Amino acid sequence: MTRSWIESANKPGSDFPLANLPYGTFCVGGGTPRCCIAIGDRVLDLALLEKVGLIDAGVGRPVFSEPVLNRFMARGAAAWQTVRSRLIELLAEQGDPALSSNRDLCKASLFALSEVRLTRPIHVGGYTDFNAARQHAYNAGSMLRGAENALPTNWTHMPIGYNGRASTVVVSGTPIRRPWGQFRPAGETEPVFAPSRRLDFELEMGAIVGLPTEMGQTLTVDEAEECIFGYVLLNDWSARDIQAWETHPLGPFQGKAFGTSISPWIVTRAALEPFRTAGPMRERPLLPYLKESRPMLYDIALEAEIRPSAQKAGTTITRSNFRNLYYSPAQLLAHHACGGCQMETGDLLGTGTISGVERQSWASLLELSSGGKEPVILETGETRRFLEDGDTITIRAWAQREALRIGFGECAATVLPAHSR
Amino acid sequence: MTRSWIESANKPGSDFPLANLPYGTFCVGGGTPRCCIAIGDRVLDLALLEKVGLIDAGVGRPVFSEPVLNRFMARGAAAWQTVRSRLIELLAEQGDPALSSNRDLCKASLFALSEVRLTRPIHVGGYTDFNAARQHAYNAGSMLRGAENALPTNWTHMPIGYNGRASTVVVSGTPIRRPWGQFRPAGETEPVFAPSRRLDFELEMGAIVGLPTEMGQTLTVDEAEECIFGYVLLNDWSARDIQAWETHPLGPFQGKAFGTSISPWIVTRAALEPFRTAGPMRERPLLPYLKESRPMLYDIALEAEIRPSAQKAGTTITRSNFRNLYYSPAQLLAHHACGGCQMETGDLLGTGTISGVERQSWASLLELSSGGKEPVILETGETRRFLEDGDTITIRAWAQREALRIGFGECAATVLPAHSR
Repeated sequence: MTRSWIESANKPGSDFPLANLPYGTFCVGGGTPRCCIAIGDRVLDLALLEKVGLIDAGVGRPVFSEPVLNRFMARGAAAWQTVRSRLIELLAEQGDPALSSNRDLCKASLFALSEVRLTRPIHVGGYTDFNAARQHAYNAGSMLRGAENALPTNWTHMPIGYNGRASTVVVSGTPIRRPWGQFRPAGETEPVFAPSRRLDFELEMGAIVGLPTEMGQTLTVDEAEECIFGYVLLNDWSARDIQAWETHPLGPFQGKAFGTSISPWIVTRAALEPFRTAGPMRERPLLPYLKESRPMLYDIALEAEIRPSAQKAGTTITRSNFRNLYYSPAQLLAHHACGGCQMETGDLLGTGTISGVERQSWASLLELSSGGKEPVILETGETRRFLEDGDTITIRAWAQREALRIGFGECAATVLPAHSR
Repeated sequence: MTRSWIESANKPGSDFPLANLPYGTFCVGGGTPRCCIAIGDRVLDLALLEKVGLIDAGVGRPVFSEPVLNRFMARGAAAWQTVRSRLIELLAEQGDPALSSNRDLCKASLFALSEVRLTRPIHVGGYTDFNAARQHAYNAGSMLRGAENALPTNWTHMPIGYNGRASTVVVSGTPIRRPWGQFRPAGETEPVFAPSRRLDFELEMGAIVGLPTEMGQTLTVDEAEECIFGYVLLNDWSARDIQAWETHPLGPFQGKAFGTSISPWIVTRAALEPFRTAGPMRERPLLPYLKESRPMLYDIALEAEIRPSAQKAGTTITRSNFRNLYYSPAQLLAHHACGGCQMETGDLLGTGTISGVERQSWASLLELSSGGKEPVILETGETRRFLEDGDTITIRAWAQREALRIGFGECAATVLPAHSR
């Protein structure tokens, strides 16, 4: 592995070695956000590097001084590759010394991660959430419809998804307020309007569309993969009582609309390439428009931790893997676009809760507590059926093989009590 | 009624008298779109009026030279009222002669409707589609689940809706291409990927959010009404075969994602005020958060016409009324926002198909043809179960009492054949 002259990037266990270089946006003090990458324990200001001419996205005007990455992402895969190669050159120990030897520029463009504020790295035009892990579809279905009818007939034929709410996609660190909503408490005949009593998280990942499509455009799975800029961690907060009462017949709506958290770092396809792996065996052949020409999942370890407000340490309550998905993000995007739906730069495609077969890999409290019936026991002895005010949920992910580690950092948020009214 | 010095605005039957003044955006030739109103058979360029100082939205910088109305809409109800009053003053026969007496300015700011291109008047951040007319919910439900279970248990307690796809909201006149998608043809066991065979329209109206809300903000129904800038006609194109196969359990998705048409004109609440009317009797009391302090529907006649490609004249296939809604747009918005979902300027809330009790007021082919079983007979003798390539659907709406008519113009689009692939 190539070493960087930024020493912290070479430390074993660092999420952000030279081979990663995830994109984000940051600000210092009250300044305007601008684009950056993470390297070791540092943030590198891409706006400044672009301004002094050290990097160039080939667009003839600045793209990295924007508060979101959308303008850069819209450039497409060739530009992403050019900038990545150049950044590796500038940051490698034996690379181009244009940055490393310029002490003033280093001082002006490198910040400690601990001294910056990371902001939401993309403008999300459309947020779509899928249900692409078989075990989660089965678990949720069996709670709603019984084990015999758990998996809907359409599920093994195509990705099932719904349009989520883009306006409440927030970056890690933004607190999530317990929502009010209408629901019918268990055993009662009339609904109430009250703060949710069954607040939950869902461990997901999100694919971010870089290259847009036209309305009505055809897109193969291979072409769809080329449109994906990278991946984020995603927590699809869910109010199970609101969701259960509203969901029939038009699907999830207000029970999911109050907040969706994403990680500040977008890990690129290029960084994940060494971890490419095949998806699960298909139970039946897919229609040609969904066929993949090569493996399109990645071996990425996932975990979620819950930390009650009074505790210093959290309890890891699930450990899963990205390859538990039945449909790859490229398939999700191909299915979405080839029905005539225009996809835009910055669109976010959630995978759905990535639950594996084993119970310890189930990735929501709904599943872990069997719909609230069997409490999850934390390391402190406390129990949780659903989330309590003050709880912090932290999702982490990393791909690792021997010394090579590509980390996603974390996606964390704390539950605030509902507004009084 | 106050007369305008623009004579065409005083003609009986004009959709756009002085009392209306709907907002839109337009361009001439290849120019950039800018904001306007309709008056009689003219379009009045608000960007120019603002530039020469005849109107002022009180914001200290231009709002009407934008290609969409969002910046003006974000100003809120007081600014909307100020600009409306000023426009009436400038356009009334006995009003301020600053425009009418300035021949050069008239020539530069007034265009014949027939010589301009009307563009999509808003940037749509979020598009939400509800199902707020009882008869449509019943009709669709009885086709899917039988007459006994037609209306879901939750339906009389709250507005049921789902997030639609904002990226494919297009202005009237934009053709709609028949989508490809996955569906299971009747009588077959395996699904296919093919152009939709059951393409349909839905006659709806859309409320446009002007004043935004914060994430987690409370909003009463009365406050919600104040946030609504105005109303458009809306055609929620639907591929019934794709929709039927995908809809369980997460709701409508690709069957609705290929296109949604809206009218170019946004009719304001102020213009509709004389037509305010109460909603239907409630079957049961609503929870307090959904209560209205006064009537919140309008008496607006609606109709849809279908014209096959080879025909010059169309057949009106449905006549309905906006007051057939069970929930008002203010209730839709209050329900949406008070669950913590941030609402943004330009958000579009579709009412759902506005079918009345009588069969001739059912507002989609799915309902009119009883799910494709009983063809609709057109005036030419042709029949339709679903839409054919080349068909043009035109929706119109107007509120009228004696000589006062507030029209919406029309929302029209032609079905293009599916792409070959």
